[in-house]
Amino acid sequence: MAFLFDRVTIVGLGLIGGSLAQALKRRRLVREVTGVSRSASTIRQALRRGAIDHGTTDPLRAAARAELIVLATPVDVIVPLARRLARAMPPGSILTDVGSTKAAIVGALSSGLPPGVAFVGGHPIAGSQRRGFEAADPRLFEGTTCILTPERRTDRQALRRVAGLWHPLVDRVVIMDPRLHDRVLAAASHLPHLIAYSLARAGRSAGGWAAPRSYLDMTRIAQSDPELWDDIFLSNRAALLAALARFERELRRLRRAIARGDRAALVRRLRQAKARRDALETP
Amino acid sequence: MAFLFDRVTIVGLGLIGGSLAQALKRRRLVREVTGVSRSASTIRQALRRGAIDHGTTDPLRAAARAELIVLATPVDVIVPLARRLARAMPPGSILTDVGSTKAAIVGALSSGLPPGVAFVGGHPIAGSQRRGFEAADPRLFEGTTCILTPERRTDRQALRRVAGLWHPLVDRVVIMDPRLHDRVLAAASHLPHLIAYSLARAGRSAGGWAAPRSYLDMTRIAQSDPELWDDIFLSNRAALLAALARFERELRRLRRAIARGDRAALVRRLRQAKARRDALETP
Repeated sequence: MAFLFDRVTIVGLGLIGGSLAQALKRRRLVREVTGVSRSASTIRQALRRGAIDHGTTDPLRAAARAELIVLATPVDVIVPLARRLARAMPPGSILTDVGSTKAAIVGALSSGLPPGVAFVGGHPIAGSQRRGFEAADPRLFEGTTCILTPERRTDRQALRRVAGLWHPLVDRVVIMDPRLHDRVLAAASHLPHLIAYSLARAGRSAGGWAAPRSYLDMTRIAQSDPELWDDIFLSNRAALLAALARFERELRRLRRAIARGDRAALVRRLRQAKARRDALETP
Repeated sequence: MAFLFDRVTIVGLGLIGGSLAQALKRRRLVREVTGVSRSASTIRQALRRGAIDHGTTDPLRAAARAELIVLATPVDVIVPLARRLARAMPPGSILTDVGSTKAAIVGALSSGLPPGVAFVGGHPIAGSQRRGFEAADPRLFEGTTCILTPERRTDRQALRRVAGLWHPLVDRVVIMDPRLHDRVLAAASHLPHLIAYSLARAGRSAGGWAAPRSYLDMTRIAQSDPELWDDIFLSNRAALLAALARFERELRRLRRAIARGDRAALVRRLRQAKARRDALETP
């Protein structure tokens, strides 16, 4: 077997970490996966499901012999945890993450790590409104994109090895500047979540009938974990507020056309919107 | 066979009219369906698919012997067409519609029709971003709600017969005041469409990667037909603008919490949103 890595440690066995562990084991891409979770029962569950070979609640213990550590924790934990673990990792090892925002993380970890430990920022664009190891799925990444966000000083060999780990799991691996990543994701993911939460809050309850599919679809991701999303919103604040301002401008234009009864302007703007969306169609 | 109606005429063989025709014929709920379309090729297609027994491009001809006429045309055509057809309909016949807004239509048709012709406003809450007879599906209404919107003067017998037509096709038939219908639909359908169009316009194109499922889901309905939706937005203007104002208030609250870095307020509001959406879950 030509394994990509001998020993991978995944810190955080939630939806993303748990899915990655299952995918790596099932596809026999790595020899050995160690799972780190604060919850002993999650570790037992992951061991039973064959998602990990070893489990521990102590990330430092797992760091000492890791060839690759994947941080799959909430965004606000990644930087302090990475700094702590890097000091325990063997020389030549690699640290990567799956956090939904990148500029702050990559910026903070671009220096200050021990010289033998390389950090590569990563973000598989996959998810679900569900959370936890129970929701993990070895096929979660199929058809998706994984974005890697090196900066000038990132070790190219480490970048290549992390890309090699994701290539078999996703449809494509894209290299992107961390700041561009944050702007793109603000518009394509963080803003839609913010809108869905707002729409769910603004909804009227009308008893006795099923909500239309349009409303259910538009608010599905408002079921996402608030404790993950407050971090994502706050850690990508500037890009998110800029994307929100663009959205509000478009909304205002449509509102003005409706308020004025300007059918020509309205239909022109709706057509432009439809054309942009039609051009996107995917899976 | 105990047919609900002997002769039903459906004016407009698009997504809704075409689906209704197919459902009525397949379930053998009515003896005979006449389809009216401006397009001779749509009529041929509907005849071939067994969705209609007769077809014509002339609604007046079809009106003369109809027991029930269902208007499945764009919203802005319904009132003038109803007035024209009612004069040709036999006494004791019923006119209904499937328009997405109700107060203006029901208001306009609550008087002025010949005494022997009853009007019952209706709205099956079903649809798709796709349009036309090609997209029609006899199972389109399964699991959905059909709202009927009588007013004080609506003939109760006619209401009962129109409800009887929908009952076998949908999950439930709900009676609602036309103005309440418009407020509820503004929040649950028209506003989500307006948001989806705005989000599609505000999207950044990032070549080389697949948009996340959240973005695709949140903009799917921006593929809806602009020529239908400009009418819906304009004919439900007041309720839509009120729903939009509520949404913008919620969005502003979240924005303010993000801009201030107020994690406690942010997570509290996200939790409330999630709780409202979790409580909804349906099919």
